[in-house]
Amino acid sequence: MELIQKLNWRYATKKMDPAKKVPKEKLGRILEAIRLSPTSSGLQPYEVIVITNEKLKEKILPIARGQSQITDCSHLLVFAAWDNYTAERINMMFDLTNQVRGVKSESWENYRNILLNSYPSRGEEVNFQHTAKQAYIGLGVGLVAAALEEVDCTPMEGFDPKALDELLELNSRGLRSVAILPLGYREEDKDWLVNLQKVRRENSSFITEIN
Amino acid sequence: MELIQKLNWRYATKKMDPAKKVPKEKLGRILEAIRLSPTSSGLQPYEVIVITNEKLKEKILPIARGQSQITDCSHLLVFAAWDNYTAERINMMFDLTNQVRGVKSESWENYRNILLNSYPSRGEEVNFQHTAKQAYIGLGVGLVAAALEEVDCTPMEGFDPKALDELLELNSRGLRSVAILPLGYREEDKDWLVNLQKVRRENSSFITEIN
Repeated sequence: MELIQKLNWRYATKKMDPAKKVPKEKLGRILEAIRLSPTSSGLQPYEVIVITNEKLKEKILPIARGQSQITDCSHLLVFAAWDNYTAERINMMFDLTNQVRGVKSESWENYRNILLNSYPSRGEEVNFQHTAKQAYIGLGVGLVAAALEEVDCTPMEGFDPKALDELLELNSRGLRSVAILPLGYREEDKDWLVNLQKVRRENSSFITEIN
Repeated sequence: MELIQKLNWRYATKKMDPAKKVPKEKLGRILEAIRLSPTSSGLQPYEVIVITNEKLKEKILPIARGQSQITDCSHLLVFAAWDNYTAERINMMFDLTNQVRGVKSESWENYRNILLNSYPSRGEEVNFQHTAKQAYIGLGVGLVAAALEEVDCTPMEGFDPKALDELLELNSRGLRSVAILPLGYREEDKDWLVNLQKVRRENSSFITEIN
């Protein structure tokens, strides 16, 4: 299966070639894969910021521990999760669903009310942990999409989310950065990780079958 | 791109055909894709339980709100995240890395010490939220792998994790269930969702480009 081959090909690229840019068509398909990713109750509780502006990347560099992929990458994706579930946000997605499908069903409206009566009152931190997890599904799908396009990427948590939120003015949009994903192309002769073997636990200590 | 087509083909299958089983080779590739998924610092802080035992599936049914995919599916995957980061677990993965790569580097050992000096002391709940997110990357990769194999799946959070942990005796293994993924095949004429249009926000309200 091509996927397994591509997942073995990919790695957390440590050095990207600043001269190589990801073609628009490939970027478009990677973003579309992320957009199509499923989320809990279909709420899509996150957004993706795509940064190519060099000056902005320079400002992000110290926020991300000086990791060179920030400035060397072709496109820097920021996964920014909703800071909370609000009635407005829940209604927005349920209204969109009714509009797209052109039907309004009692069971669907009942489900809307269940979420309206439970999510907003759960508390902001509980909700943010939930929205962040949904963004991680998109992160997983996005890195597969990149691999299938033979585009390198480096999923990163090693940055200061508060500083990044401030720089990108995410708080005013009700968003909080949870992960970043530089996209680009490996510069093999300068990357210490490229030739090291991928390490994963064997099936015996990762998978349990109950037959 | 095949991926986009397959992501449009997939949906959160509501009715699975209990007579149809996922072939061993396809299941193997889906699990291998999950195993190859990246995680923060490569710690792989979760495991996957694969359940085909019918009696066990029957016991899980009420824990998962009676959703029929639990018993109708071919294979039920449970994503179970580490309940905490311990020195033992961190050392296990760093030792494995040294063993697989056959090298021991100072910078890698320094990185081990950074994690040993920070992760265990962060507190169990902070760590569990972190391990759970890593499992969600695997969930995202796994559902893409299933789609590419034309295997249906239904990512689910709608279950009682504490009850499932107890049933599967996960606590004694230092694990907590975070998501479940029934794999199988849609039974189209009994599935209310199969013909309804997929709903996602447009790019304009999901993606922001900063050029």
